[in-house]
Amino acid sequence: MGFVDRVTDPDNADYVPPSDRIAVFDNDGTLWSEKPVYFQFLFAIDRAQELAKKNPDWASTPALEAAARGDFAAIEERGVPALLEIATATHSGVSIDDFASEATQWIETATHPQNGRRYRDMTYVPMRELLDYLRANSFKVFIVSGGGIDFMRTFAEKAYGVPPENVIGTYGDAEYRAVDGRGQIMKSPKIAFLDDKAAKPIAIARHIGKRPIFVGGNSDGDFEMAEWATTGESPSLAVFVHHTDGEREFAYDRESLIGALDRGLDEAYGRGWILIDMARDWNAVWPETSGNRSAPR
Amino acid sequence: MGFVDRVTDPDNADYVPPSDRIAVFDNDGTLWSEKPVYFQFLFAIDRAQELAKKNPDWASTPALEAAARGDFAAIEERGVPALLEIATATHSGVSIDDFASEATQWIETATHPQNGRRYRDMTYVPMRELLDYLRANSFKVFIVSGGGIDFMRTFAEKAYGVPPENVIGTYGDAEYRAVDGRGQIMKSPKIAFLDDKAAKPIAIARHIGKRPIFVGGNSDGDFEMAEWATTGESPSLAVFVHHTDGEREFAYDRESLIGALDRGLDEAYGRGWILIDMARDWNAVWPETSGNRSAPR
Repeated sequence: MGFVDRVTDPDNADYVPPSDRIAVFDNDGTLWSEKPVYFQFLFAIDRAQELAKKNPDWASTPALEAAARGDFAAIEERGVPALLEIATATHSGVSIDDFASEATQWIETATHPQNGRRYRDMTYVPMRELLDYLRANSFKVFIVSGGGIDFMRTFAEKAYGVPPENVIGTYGDAEYRAVDGRGQIMKSPKIAFLDDKAAKPIAIARHIGKRPIFVGGNSDGDFEMAEWATTGESPSLAVFVHHTDGEREFAYDRESLIGALDRGLDEAYGRGWILIDMARDWNAVWPETSGNRSAPR
Repeated sequence: MGFVDRVTDPDNADYVPPSDRIAVFDNDGTLWSEKPVYFQFLFAIDRAQELAKKNPDWASTPALEAAARGDFAAIEERGVPALLEIATATHSGVSIDDFASEATQWIETATHPQNGRRYRDMTYVPMRELLDYLRANSFKVFIVSGGGIDFMRTFAEKAYGVPPENVIGTYGDAEYRAVDGRGQIMKSPKIAFLDDKAAKPIAIARHIGKRPIFVGGNSDGDFEMAEWATTGESPSLAVFVHHTDGEREFAYDRESLIGALDRGLDEAYGRGWILIDMARDWNAVWPETSGNRSAPR
């Protein structure tokens, strides 16, 4: 008898009442793809090319200068710190309302550099079915991601059926002010909370106030939240997407710059966590698209 | 035609779809009483008397020493900083699970020093009816309070029908760790986010990701969230509980140590915010209690 059947059957010893059926999912690499780097970084690079025109001083900063030229190879060479610098510079000095408009515009139109798909058409069909299945069984489904909350909220409801208040993630400092009598919130260029690794269980405790009983992840960034969820009093389950499919998607695990799965790969079996072998277990990866697939750029 | 009627009528120009019907309420002084001080501080003082036995060094700190003796007058004299010091000391060095058990035990049994009511029987009947009314009209109702999230979550669902994930508030630093293979979150003695005044709109943006259209408050600590909510694109409404009823509850506003309403009182009319005159507008204040009211201590 499967996990969901057990926790939803009032006659089963493993029964969990609906209010405690909390499911949390990482986003990048778990619900949609994350290569060559997190798509939010690609948004940041696109945005940098616009913003650089108004910020001539960026020319003196190697990461921002490379972003302004759209030179992805030069940025990648500098690694995650350069990507974070670009993200921070391009995600500040703007109100959350204006930022949401611009991110929405991007997510509706921008396409992946390698396959020409729109990013929103790179969500995983089997995972979307899993979210639906859990919700149909009265689970409350949350995203708990290292991605930025203001960015993810522009597509999470449409892509996954996850409303903004169920999106937990990284966020920056912010400032409230009233301009001409109108209240607005401005994004500041400093990360206030980086939602990764051991910070994920803390973010869940702050936002949801309950220990989840279901976790979906794909990298060691999800290790602690899976550990926390699966060592409580309630029956629980953790599943990890293992990126084994270099043909249909991308193949990587222990050594990857983005989305490395190393300790999780070693310990999953012993902890009873399920590894999803993408190549073997999934009939489809991304949704069928019709007419909205553009040529690779 | 009232606000709720307008925003829920698809044929009205002010119609707001259910997903955007976000309502936020302060807790202390808005949904339940807050005198002589926030009830969480009274919990902290009770808890200090227990914890002082294990912490002899508290004797050298005036606020903690007074708390250990349960000397409320001496604490009150030292004002809010002393109360915060006591709250911080008594809300740390414990796992969130153990803290929740202890806070739940207290809220179920402890009684108010002046009227002998259990604190949970000092919620406001008309406000609980308002929450029910909004939810019946497909509003999502959140608490946004200066109170601590771990404390409020022990009673918010039972008292107001607000589940833990809809409780936003002040929180401390925390640490995740695995002890004997079991993940747990420990509360640290430092406030990470104080959810008051201009921090409230920021907390709402982070947690909910939308500008509310309905705000309930009672003090200047709620001013900015009311301003933010009522200066957006959507129709909106803010209501402030004005504590005018010294006979049935407590009478205070501009000069109060706790829950001061000063700027809000000056500007409410001009901004179209509704002031609720507790003495005049409310038939009942607290719920009728039967058999669970103990003698004043």
